[in-house]
Amino acid sequence: MDEREYQELITPYRECMENMENRIRVLAEDYRDRCGEEPIHHIQKRIKTKESIEGKLRRRDMEETAEDARNYLRDIAGIRVICYDLEGIRKLTRALKRQMDLEIVKEKDYIANPKPNGYRSLHVIVRIPVYFLDKKELIPVEVQLRTVAMDFWASLEHDLKYKAVRDLEGIDTRAELKDCSRIIEDVEARMQILARALEVGE
Amino acid sequence: MDEREYQELITPYRECMENMENRIRVLAEDYRDRCGEEPIHHIQKRIKTKESIEGKLRRRDMEETAEDARNYLRDIAGIRVICYDLEGIRKLTRALKRQMDLEIVKEKDYIANPKPNGYRSLHVIVRIPVYFLDKKELIPVEVQLRTVAMDFWASLEHDLKYKAVRDLEGIDTRAELKDCSRIIEDVEARMQILARALEVGE
Amino acid sequence: MDEREYQELITPYRECMENMENRIRVLAEDYRDRCGEEPIHHIQKRIKTKESIEGKLRRRDMEETAEDARNYLRDIAGIRVICYDLEGIRKLTRALKRQMDLEIVKEKDYIANPKPNGYRSLHVIVRIPVYFLDKKELIPVEVQLRTVAMDFWASLEHDLKYKAVRDLEGIDTRAELKDCSRIIEDVEARMQILARALEVGE
Amino acid sequence: MDEREYQELITPYRECMENMENRIRVLAEDYRDRCGEEPIHHIQKRIKTKESIEGKLRRRDMEETAEDARNYLRDIAGIRVICYDLEGIRKLTRALKRQMDLEIVKEKDYIANPKPNGYRSLHVIVRIPVYFLDKKELIPVEVQLRTVAMDFWASLEHDLKYKAVRDLEGIDTRAELKDCSRIIEDVEARMQILARALEVGE
Repeated sequence: MDEREYQELITPYRECMENMENRIRVLAEDYRDRCGEEPIHHIQKRIKTKESIEGKLRRRDMEETAEDARNYLRDIAGIRVICYDLEGIRKLTRALKRQMDLEIVKEKDYIANPKPNGYRSLHVIVRIPVYFLDKKELIPVEVQLRTVAMDFWASLEHDLKYKAVRDLEGIDTRAELKDCSRIIEDVEARMQILARALEVGE
Repeated sequence: MDEREYQELITPYRECMENMENRIRVLAEDYRDRCGEEPIHHIQKRIKTKESIEGKLRRRDMEETAEDARNYLRDIAGIRVICYDLEGIRKLTRALKRQMDLEIVKEKDYIANPKPNGYRSLHVIVRIPVYFLDKKELIPVEVQLRTVAMDFWASLEHDLKYKAVRDLEGIDTRAELKDCSRIIEDVEARMQILARALEVGE
Repeated sequence: MDEREYQELITPYRECMENMENRIRVLAEDYRDRCGEEPIHHIQKRIKTKESIEGKLRRRDMEETAEDARNYLRDIAGIRVICYDLEGIRKLTRALKRQMDLEIVKEKDYIANPKPNGYRSLHVIVRIPVYFLDKKELIPVEVQLRTVAMDFWASLEHDLKYKAVRDLEGIDTRAELKDCSRIIEDVEARMQILARALEVGE
Repeated sequence: MDEREYQELITPYRECMENMENRIRVLAEDYRDRCGEEPIHHIQKRIKTKESIEGKLRRRDMEETAEDARNYLRDIAGIRVICYDLEGIRKLTRALKRQMDLEIVKEKDYIANPKPNGYRSLHVIVRIPVYFLDKKELIPVEVQLRTVAMDFWASLEHDLKYKAVRDLEGIDTRAELKDCSRIIEDVEARMQILARALEVGE
């Protein structure tokens, strides 16, 4: 895959990523207008680099071509939606699923079922229609939804990723990581109980 | 209409304007990949200001509310596509009309039938679906397509608009304006004949 | 202050906010090239709305004019930099202070000295030169720097802000809030000790 | 120069291009506030691609490295300002030259002295300060200023560039091109005389 092929490959993915961001912003705006609350803390997005696409294809024993990238990778475009609470995540996801022109390809709920290291997030692969001069194509975008607490934990873990994670004298690194995940979840729960209690009493 | 109502009004229009820009960029990219030629010189876009929306409603004897703006105005969001030649305009317009999820509301061909002062452009009003939390709405965007020559004339005319256009001693201003439009059209035609001749001979 | 005056007021502030964002992104890029680590988790920015500017002027017994806004408010443009750790905050702040064309007006270190409710962040007011047709002006931008942990706490607190914070039966709301702040700080410290231990051992 | 080196190379150029665009927009805004006229029709900008940088270095017998690009190329970042008239070009250029932190490296006035084929534009190379973690660098940006007429001609010429320009049976292609340039210049002059006449009479 040379630079020109990579640029040609990612153009529709970039369009879909922006399309998805706009869809989510419209939903968030609607949410705010009705409930008086902003559901989204912030949004991040990224297009996989040429190096990263080629690396992933290689690890899966596929050819490092634009064609194989198109056929087998579904996270070339990714968008991450950091919400204030679980209810925001659930409402946005439900609304996305109701959009008739989208196709939900796959859903992985690491919130209901966290990964062993403590990772929590909701992953949805959505295919979005893109219109070319004389055909329509469905392009996948990976949407990750998480609360600020889940993102806080992921950012601490990101900090560790630069180092080689291994056990230190007297410290079980992985257990430590998971323990932090649990504490963060607890803090978030305590604050939300507080929020709900204040709400009820209003 | 207060500032908050205006902001609420224009949010989905902004989303649609960007959606339309993305659709046009995808088509242009596809055109370039196939023909080796860039069809678009540049794109401009604008959301009508609060003042401009209120002025237009007033002139049409409607109420200056967000509701009347939504019901009666179709140019709250506008996008202008300046193409290198007529063929680009025709191909992009045809491709837009083929996009199944869009609704073409109205088309005015001021290229085939220029306005009396010499104005030429193709105007299309397109309605684009926007998905809210629990409903879908079709939002209109005005798309203007013109060649660089037509835009050149329009920009000269824009220069005059700041002044009060009236006849000067010995000058028929409107005739002068129209004459310039004709000359610009001629130059564009000469250059395109040249381009086509070079093409044939290749 | 009518809409036109507001728009005229904020134009140079918007330019400065983007200028500041670019300066910070250049520093972050330089940091990454040298240390192999990304210092910034994400950046948020905002221009105060007309309503918010007028409200603040009113509360301070000033006139609700563009002139008073220009003379007395220093947070019309704000940018928030969420870093992975304290070291990133310190390095970015030091580098900003070294930029000769900037003027540091004020610095409040709520990291060294947290607010009573547990709020932590570093606030710096920086004045940036803007060149008009025939004069130069220095425009203030408020830069807030915080770690992901501080931002996590602030986002939980933001969630409460929508409700009227008051004591509930058997719960001391403010103490609860502060307790959470302490726990989050602890988790962050634990993870950073872990990160440093892994680093040393490499 | 691999992809990573290219990305590292262009980062500060992108920052400067945006910085320059902001400076020009502030000047245009100031112009509009004072004269009631918008001076700028539109702005275009581009960063040279990796391929284009390498091609230019090769043609000049330099090494295709980021270092040689940095040392010898001054148009890696380019911004094109299309103005409504010559006065706008002159005023913007004068104001840019007065900005104390910029360094004007080179100026080529193809408006006073058009190229043989009819090309007209004002080219200025400006060096803009960029602050890294512990040093300041001056990065060049090429600013091209032209009227809509000059841009119209350039866009017609761009249309021809895709073909091999050569003489056709009975047509002197280059003379034809230059003749069009003259006619476009005439039309623009006629319209501006008209504009000025209307102004005087106000």
